[in-house]
Amino acid sequence: MKSIFWRNNGLVIIDQTLLPARVEYLFLSNPTEVIEAIRKMCIRGAPALAIAAAFALFLGIRNLRARSYIEFRKDFDRIKRSIASSRPTAINLFWALERMSRRLEENKEKSVREIKRILFKEAKDILEENRSVTRQLSKIGAQLIKDNDRILTICNTGILATVDYGTALGVIYEAKRQKKSFKVFACETRPLLQGARLTAWELKQNKIDVTLICDGMAGYLMQKKLINKVIVGADRIVLNGDTANKIGTYNLAVLCRYHKIPFFVAAPLSSFDLSIKNGDFIPIEERDPREVTHLFFKKPIAPEGIKVFNPAFDITPHRLITCFITEKGIIKPPFKKNIKKIYNENQ
Amino acid sequence: MKSIFWRNNGLVIIDQTLLPARVEYLFLSNPTEVIEAIRKMCIRGAPALAIAAAFALFLGIRNLRARSYIEFRKDFDRIKRSIASSRPTAINLFWALERMSRRLEENKEKSVREIKRILFKEAKDILEENRSVTRQLSKIGAQLIKDNDRILTICNTGILATVDYGTALGVIYEAKRQKKSFKVFACETRPLLQGARLTAWELKQNKIDVTLICDGMAGYLMQKKLINKVIVGADRIVLNGDTANKIGTYNLAVLCRYHKIPFFVAAPLSSFDLSIKNGDFIPIEERDPREVTHLFFKKPIAPEGIKVFNPAFDITPHRLITCFITEKGIIKPPFKKNIKKIYNENQ
Repeated sequence: MKSIFWRNNGLVIIDQTLLPARVEYLFLSNPTEVIEAIRKMCIRGAPALAIAAAFALFLGIRNLRARSYIEFRKDFDRIKRSIASSRPTAINLFWALERMSRRLEENKEKSVREIKRILFKEAKDILEENRSVTRQLSKIGAQLIKDNDRILTICNTGILATVDYGTALGVIYEAKRQKKSFKVFACETRPLLQGARLTAWELKQNKIDVTLICDGMAGYLMQKKLINKVIVGADRIVLNGDTANKIGTYNLAVLCRYHKIPFFVAAPLSSFDLSIKNGDFIPIEERDPREVTHLFFKKPIAPEGIKVFNPAFDITPHRLITCFITEKGIIKPPFKKNIKKIYNENQ
Repeated sequence: MKSIFWRNNGLVIIDQTLLPARVEYLFLSNPTEVIEAIRKMCIRGAPALAIAAAFALFLGIRNLRARSYIEFRKDFDRIKRSIASSRPTAINLFWALERMSRRLEENKEKSVREIKRILFKEAKDILEENRSVTRQLSKIGAQLIKDNDRILTICNTGILATVDYGTALGVIYEAKRQKKSFKVFACETRPLLQGARLTAWELKQNKIDVTLICDGMAGYLMQKKLINKVIVGADRIVLNGDTANKIGTYNLAVLCRYHKIPFFVAAPLSSFDLSIKNGDFIPIEERDPREVTHLFFKKPIAPEGIKVFNPAFDITPHRLITCFITEKGIIKPPFKKNIKKIYNENQ
């Protein structure tokens, strides 16, 4: 199964809002459609958003009539800004847009036709690299999984959040491929239930022993020693190691600290944002209250007109994180020093 | 509004499964109907379960043809056992049944007709005492609420969980009556959403400033200093102070400890079970997986056949509890000593 690919001159994605009830693909042929798909969470997951953003940008520039670089650049930047406005927290989206910008800048002397070809290749490279990066990350992370582990995770960080393997779930798939024997517990991940709808579905399809729980049950399971490891993904990791991830992640990190359970964050280097000093400066997206009050914007589950607070992400401070799992190795504390080091080595 | 009352020779309750969409009352005329209403959560909340259990027992014995005490007692015990099997964790249900038993025992010399009259009065007394006990508890607890407090709660502990005021929410209603100014945050309380459906609805109806959040957001709010107190109810408090309450409560208690936020448990003395030494021995009800995988047993929100763990309660160890709020005063640590003391003074 692939969650995102290029076919017939368009971007094809699984519509994740319909899972697990229906597996349907969306064909996206222009940036507006991609932006809409991102906003509606038809596609989500930090690594997948990078791919979607890169192709959205290509879809926007492929038919531009501009003949000069200056003219082309103006349109390119306009399209880039509109894509950048689709979701604020996951850095991978901006990372992909910046990478496309750099490639454009490097090739500004070339013809517009040639530039378009180069940017198309760049988007395809981002997709292919995602595949190899998550495989590599998963191999490195699988070393941390032992027989009889009981691993808790939140949100979805698997096939659906990447091209075809995953970050935190990639580690789990790789450990399974290595024939390790373990159990996974999936937090349902309110409000949008990515854990129940996507993670439980993916893992079950791939014959991983998975048990679904509500987010509020995590502490009870830890108290009963039913969990001995937590692995999550990340939407943005900043210089000191503070990590933005799906709302509910911080609860788990605090619970891990209290129960002395290791807390791992699995993410590619493209999820790191070294321009930000600490978590206080990461923008946190607040989403429609109807995600909380209505199930999938349909059935009301709360009184009409009730006040709602719906932050989509939270920040886990670096001191609660045991280590980061990246495609270039495990990053241990002190994070500031070691994140800089691994980043500089791989520039 | 009353959530439970006696009318036309039957027990009338609000069907809480239909809230907040519809306010509909159920008329219950025999124990089987009451047991079914308890199992389906049409009525829930530890204090309200005491009232339901007492009236269920009366409904069962009122038409008994028994003439002798022995005969009567046999039927009484059979009915009592079936009511006791309806829900295992909330002690108040058993407390009410035991109280009815004791009253029967005390009056065994009387005629069956007279005994029936006495047991009817006992059930009505339990209801009326619930009213005064929760008012008294609420007055005592309201001392702990200050202007500008931001109070988080879980599940429903208000009008719907008692006769007409509440325990944790009773404290909030009383603080409001005293014109204190504060905000309340309600955890939605998955899987059955008592926070979203019942607490948010009750508080909004009573013009309390309430904001609904998902359970996984609690840590984020504490980190951002949007919460400075947590008040919850209890289904059973044992000798050392360990407390069973709605699943998700323990998460909050750990988060409070980490953020140095006081954690209060509001419960009447009928919620205390001094026959149990510590929380390890409290039975925890596991409920139907479909509560997690299907919203209100209808719309599926998870893949078919997925494994689910659905404990309805968790245990908060006494060391995470700041104090108990009861109708006889605040109980501070050391809990074992002080619980025994308050209990012995009020036997």
